[in-house]
Amino acid sequence: MTPKFTAVAVMTIDGKIAKNSHHNVNWSSAEDKAFLRQQIAKHDAIIVGRNTFEVAKKALTKKEYATRNYIVLTRSAKTFKKQSRQVLYLNPQKIDLKKTIEKLGYKKVCILGGTQTYSLMLRKNLLDEIFLTVEPLVFGTGLTFFEGNLPAAKFKLISIKKLNHQGAILLHYQKI
Amino acid sequence: MTPKFTAVAVMTIDGKIAKNSHHNVNWSSAEDKAFLRQQIAKHDAIIVGRNTFEVAKKALTKKEYATRNYIVLTRSAKTFKKQSRQVLYLNPQKIDLKKTIEKLGYKKVCILGGTQTYSLMLRKNLLDEIFLTVEPLVFGTGLTFFEGNLPAAKFKLISIKKLNHQGAILLHYQKI
Repeated sequence: MTPKFTAVAVMTIDGKIAKNSHHNVNWSSAEDKAFLRQQIAKHDAIIVGRNTFEVAKKALTKKEYATRNYIVLTRSAKTFKKQSRQVLYLNPQKIDLKKTIEKLGYKKVCILGGTQTYSLMLRKNLLDEIFLTVEPLVFGTGLTFFEGNLPAAKFKLISIKKLNHQGAILLHYQKI
Repeated sequence: MTPKFTAVAVMTIDGKIAKNSHHNVNWSSAEDKAFLRQQIAKHDAIIVGRNTFEVAKKALTKKEYATRNYIVLTRSAKTFKKQSRQVLYLNPQKIDLKKTIEKLGYKKVCILGGTQTYSLMLRKNLLDEIFLTVEPLVFGTGLTFFEGNLPAAKFKLISIKKLNHQGAILLHYQKI
């Protein structure tokens, strides 16, 4: 069985996932946060960029941190480096990410961002579905969900769910 | 009665409204285009940036071009310049846009973009509601809906509508 890759993201009406690379991941609605925690609990492994991991760690509970497997993408690792039982630093330019995940036996992989990580996974064709929350805000400046030269990618909307009264919505897409 | 300002936009999952400033406005689904034409027909006046106007003109029918009032925002006009009965070029840095629209008697104003125009209208507090289509595509590179330093802006979702089988959705937001 090939692993299934699911990106989970939250953005504003103007497509920004954060105001900048140090912006905490905590700006979204309580309902989005609850959904994110559910997704983290559901997956074998979490793929996340080094910078997002540094910012996100603060928002993780001890249990979430200790019981999940994190693959942290970074160009600063020569190849890969196991930091702890749960945390593996990996340079995706040196190591075949898909093969590594298959060797590790992960079946359900959650991609948590940020922009570079989402974009890399799409470029490597390691992105099967997206859960995207759209919060009814505008940031103006900020980082977008995907960025850079990417292959043309089409998706199919599987479901829409209104998350709260204000109108945060959760969109579920499948790559086609 | 103060005029009502409605932005109409279409973007990808990654928040891009166009691949670049010369990208035609025709990339969206047939259903989104039909909705846009409906909106153009419904409003007294259309506000659009000069560049978007040049690109959009090609997609307008003769009737749409001849029977609507277009206010084309440009920094190259000294103040304003009536190009034809229907088309007014206006420099928003020199002329008070709101007062001009009130003088002209327009009640329902549709903002068609691009990024700079949407952002300017939000910054000037001349944006009451948004109709935003999200197409199930990813561009990667491109222009985002809003960009730049903008006042914090919150919206309330009024409605969601699925536009087609593929999963283009139409979101209707009101500024709060």
